[in-house]
Amino acid sequence: MKVLEVIQKRRSIRKYKEDPIPEDVLQRVLEAARLAPSGKNLQPWKFVIVRDKELKNRLVHASAGQFFIAEAPIIVVACGFPDECYSKMGRYMKSWPVDVTIALEHLILQAHEDGLGTCWVGSFEEEAVKSILNVPESVKVLALTPLGYPDEDPPFRGRKSLDEIFSYDKY
Amino acid sequence: MKVLEVIQKRRSIRKYKEDPIPEDVLQRVLEAARLAPSGKNLQPWKFVIVRDKELKNRLVHASAGQFFIAEAPIIVVACGFPDECYSKMGRYMKSWPVDVTIALEHLILQAHEDGLGTCWVGSFEEEAVKSILNVPESVKVLALTPLGYPDEDPPFRGRKSLDEIFSYDKY
Repeated sequence: MKVLEVIQKRRSIRKYKEDPIPEDVLQRVLEAARLAPSGKNLQPWKFVIVRDKELKNRLVHASAGQFFIAEAPIIVVACGFPDECYSKMGRYMKSWPVDVTIALEHLILQAHEDGLGTCWVGSFEEEAVKSILNVPESVKVLALTPLGYPDEDPPFRGRKSLDEIFSYDKY
Repeated sequence: MKVLEVIQKRRSIRKYKEDPIPEDVLQRVLEAARLAPSGKNLQPWKFVIVRDKELKNRLVHASAGQFFIAEAPIIVVACGFPDECYSKMGRYMKSWPVDVTIALEHLILQAHEDGLGTCWVGSFEEEAVKSILNVPESVKVLALTPLGYPDEDPPFRGRKSLDEIFSYDKY
């Protein structure tokens, strides 16, 4: 599929089949994240691929009880390195949330291309997730996504119009 | 192109032709940003499409003198709304940097598919950019990118290995 078609058809999937993900498909999806650009090419990220059932269930409890994330064969936990990133974005912020987001969205788009579903999960207790996966103190958890074959086909949720979000030469 | 191919071939472009961008191409690239997912679908973003030469030159001076950004026919300035986003990502951050990043990366991937170059620019003085474009006090500027036809073909800069950035079940 072309990029825009993938973007148009991707949905946040909250119901998954148990079918496992073939290794070659998984590697392609991970490769899309690996190749992401980042501030000064520092790549301040690490991704934990959680397949263990007990760990997935514990992540559910650290994520406001969103049971669907454990239905998928994999939960991807996206982590960033505040101490190893470009530290002056706009002169006010560290780049790691931007860098990690780009990489995770690459993974999510390639997942859709390969027939897999995902869902950006932002409702989680960071400290609990870190404790479950032994994430070091200095590392941040940005987001989680389940990764698996969709068992639903949700409708498009709508977006603001072009006029509302783009302007020309002045804000 | 397929998503992974676009991701593999995209480069940060720092030299642009003056050729204008056809309106239908521009609209496709903007559509890719418009369709991005965001926390609670709040879409806390606005993008300023800067085509005016004087404004572009002023943005150069607000961006550490990176002259190449004004070579391109357009500079896209990506803004976020801290007051209108999901405010509890991981229980510690507002979602707008994540939301705006996803939308801008969509734009960047579709731009590459359409033969256009871009470059994530994070080295800018936010207050100066806001002043040049009349961005309201409550709105943040996340990043800029030039948008135009590439006049260079930079080599791949390399990335960390899969082993270095992915782990299984534990960090």
